[in-house]
Amino acid sequence: MNDRDYMKIALDLAKGTKGQTSPNPVVGAVIVNQGRIVGMGAHLKAGQPHAEVHALNMAGSLAKNSTLYVTLEPCSHFGRTPPCAERIVAEQVKRVVVATLDPNPLVSGMGIDLLEKAGIEVTVGVLEQEAKQLNESFNKYITTRMPFVTVKTAMTLDGKIATYTGSSKWITGEKSREYVHQLRHEHDAIMVGIGTILKDNPSLTVRTEVEGLNPIRIVVDSKLRIPLDAKVVIDGKAPTWIFTTNHVSEQKINELTKMGIQVIVTKGEESVPLQEVLQYLGKNHVTSVFVEGGSTLTGSLFDHGLIDKYIGFIAPKLVGGFQSLTSIGGEGKTMMTQAVPLTNISIQQFEDDFCIMGYPIFSSSEGGKVNVYRID
Amino acid sequence: MNDRDYMKIALDLAKGTKGQTSPNPVVGAVIVNQGRIVGMGAHLKAGQPHAEVHALNMAGSLAKNSTLYVTLEPCSHFGRTPPCAERIVAEQVKRVVVATLDPNPLVSGMGIDLLEKAGIEVTVGVLEQEAKQLNESFNKYITTRMPFVTVKTAMTLDGKIATYTGSSKWITGEKSREYVHQLRHEHDAIMVGIGTILKDNPSLTVRTEVEGLNPIRIVVDSKLRIPLDAKVVIDGKAPTWIFTTNHVSEQKINELTKMGIQVIVTKGEESVPLQEVLQYLGKNHVTSVFVEGGSTLTGSLFDHGLIDKYIGFIAPKLVGGFQSLTSIGGEGKTMMTQAVPLTNISIQQFEDDFCIMGYPIFSSSEGGKVNVYRID
Repeated sequence: MNDRDYMKIALDLAKGTKGQTSPNPVVGAVIVNQGRIVGMGAHLKAGQPHAEVHALNMAGSLAKNSTLYVTLEPCSHFGRTPPCAERIVAEQVKRVVVATLDPNPLVSGMGIDLLEKAGIEVTVGVLEQEAKQLNESFNKYITTRMPFVTVKTAMTLDGKIATYTGSSKWITGEKSREYVHQLRHEHDAIMVGIGTILKDNPSLTVRTEVEGLNPIRIVVDSKLRIPLDAKVVIDGKAPTWIFTTNHVSEQKINELTKMGIQVIVTKGEESVPLQEVLQYLGKNHVTSVFVEGGSTLTGSLFDHGLIDKYIGFIAPKLVGGFQSLTSIGGEGKTMMTQAVPLTNISIQQFEDDFCIMGYPIFSSSEGGKVNVYRID
Repeated sequence: MNDRDYMKIALDLAKGTKGQTSPNPVVGAVIVNQGRIVGMGAHLKAGQPHAEVHALNMAGSLAKNSTLYVTLEPCSHFGRTPPCAERIVAEQVKRVVVATLDPNPLVSGMGIDLLEKAGIEVTVGVLEQEAKQLNESFNKYITTRMPFVTVKTAMTLDGKIATYTGSSKWITGEKSREYVHQLRHEHDAIMVGIGTILKDNPSLTVRTEVEGLNPIRIVVDSKLRIPLDAKVVIDGKAPTWIFTTNHVSEQKINELTKMGIQVIVTKGEESVPLQEVLQYLGKNHVTSVFVEGGSTLTGSLFDHGLIDKYIGFIAPKLVGGFQSLTSIGGEGKTMMTQAVPLTNISIQQFEDDFCIMGYPIFSSSEGGKVNVYRID
C-alpha cells in the first residue's frame, strides 16, 4: 500500500455519493495509523459533516499520529459546519495527503496553510486528475456560478436518433439505459426541449434498481406549449421548472404555477436564451445539468458553445433515411475544419452498445484553437 | 505448439495476401515434420500454384510422414492447376488439418474424401470461424455469384458525414485513412455514387506506404453526369466502370468508351437497379465491392438490403446542423423496432477515432428476425 492506494480508497468512497452532496462537492477520507485503516468517511449531504469529520470520529483516539488521506483540501472556514483543518490539528494528525486543492479561488490553499503552520506534514496532488474529474461539475460551478452541462445522446451506427417518422424507442439496450438512469441520479437537473415532452411525455425520473434521487426537471418551452396533463406537470415526483419567452399567455403561466410548476419568463422574445437559463440555474444552486435532447435543444446548446461534456451512446444497428434526425441539430459548423474536437475521450461498452465520452473544446473559449486533428 | 498454433500461422500467411488472389480465396499452408516447420506457403495469384503446392515444394522429401495445415480444404479437381489433394497423397503426407471446407457446394468435401480414401488422417474445423471470415467475400461470391458488399462510412460523434455546406475533409485522422487505403487494396472494386465524383473528384486509388493494388472503380451515375475530365475518367490508374440508365446520351457513352471507360447501360429507367449492378459485377468475377458513399448510394443499398458488412468510423468531434448529411440516406426504416441489427460486432481504435464493424441482418433474409435487442 502506498499513498496512491489509500487515496484510491478515499476516491471510491467519494464516488459512491455522486448526486447526493450538491451543491457541495463529493469528498472521501481515509485515516491510516501504523499500517491499518482506522477511519473512513465521505461527505453525505450538504449541511452535514465533511468527510474528514466522519473519518476522524471513526478513528477516535487513533487519529493521533495518523496519516489522513482526503480527496479535497480540508476547509479552513466556517460554512454550515466548523473548519475541518482546525479539527485535524486538534486531533494531532501527523500527516495529511490531499488529492486536489479547493477549486474555490477565495479559499484555495488556505486549509493547507493552516495545517502546515500547525506543524503537520502535507502532501498535495496524489491522484489529482481523478479527484478533479470526480468533481468536474462542482469545479465549474464554484468558479463560474454556472452549472456543468452534460449532453447525452443515443444514436444508431448510421448516426440517427430517430427514424424519419420520429420513432426512437429503443435505440440502445437495457444496460445502456440503466446507466442513463444512474447519470440522472448524479445530476442536479435534467433538461429537455418542449419537443421531447410533446413527443414522448417522459417522466424524467430516476428509475434504478435501488431508489435514486430525482433531479429537477427543466423544460425549455419558448411558446409555453406544455400540456397541463404532461407527466412532468402532474406527477409531483420532482420539481419542474419551465423556461419560456416573454410573449406567452399569462393565464397558462398561472395555471401551471397553481399546479406547483415554476415558470421562469426569460428575456427571450422568440427563443429562450440558454445562457440566461444556465445563469438562473447557477444562481439557484444547480451545479450540474443533464441534457437529454432532442436535436433542437442540443443544437442550440452546441451553436452557443454551452456543452461541457458529451456522452454519445452508439447502438450497432442501422435505420437509414435522409429525413431521420441526428443528435445535434441547430445551424452547425460551416466547414469540417471547424468541427469541435473532444478531449479526454473515453469509451465504455454496455452489452452491444458503445458509449463515447469527451469534453468539447469550443474555439471561442480556446483562443482560436479549432482542431486538434492533423489536416492534410 | 498445437494444431491451433500451426493453423494460426497458416491463417497469417493467408491474411497477408488479401486483395491479390481474386477471384480465388486466400489460403495459407504450413507443413510440420517431427516438431519442425518444413514448409510454408500461400496462394499468391489466381492461375498460380495453390498454398499447399508452395509448401510441399519447400518441404521436398520432408513432406513424407508430415502434417499439413491448410486454411481451406485442398482441391480435388483440375482447375487452372492440378488437384492439390492428389499431390498431397503422392507426397505421402501423414495427416492433414483443415480449417474449413470448400464453400463451393459443387466440390465441398470431395478433397477430404480423396485424402481419407488414400489413408491420410484428416482433421477438419480447426480455427474454422477465423478461416471463414478471412474469405467472407469469396464465400458469398462462390455460393451466390454476387460480390460481397462492404459499406464504409466516417462520421462525427453527432452522426454527420459532412457539414450543412457539404464540407467533409477530414472527418477522421491519418491512421483511419491509412486503414481505408488498405481496405481498398483488399477489395476487387470500389463503388461511389455520382454525387461523390461531382463533389470531390476523387481518384479512388490505393495510396499506401508500399504500393498497393488499385480496385476497379465503379460509379453509379443514373443520368451519366460524370465530367469527361473527372480523375477516374482520365487518370488511367485503374479500370472505371460506369453504371447508368437507358435514357442517357448515346454520344456521351461513346465519348467515355473512346477514353477507355466501360459504360454499362442497365434496365433502369430513372435510377440504376443496384441488384442488377451487383449481378453484373459477379458475372465479371468481381468478388468484393467496397462502397465509399455518399448518403444516396448507401441509402439505396440499405433500402434494398444489399449491405453485407458495415464499417463505421467515428471521429470524436461535433459539427451539429439539422441540414448536415448522415452516412445512410435513402428512405430508411419507419420504426426504430425495424432497425437492422449488426452481428459479430468488433471495434478498433485508430488514434482518437473508433471504427465499429459488423454484419447487418436484414429481416427479409432472416425470416422476420428484426431485432436482437430486448424491447421493453
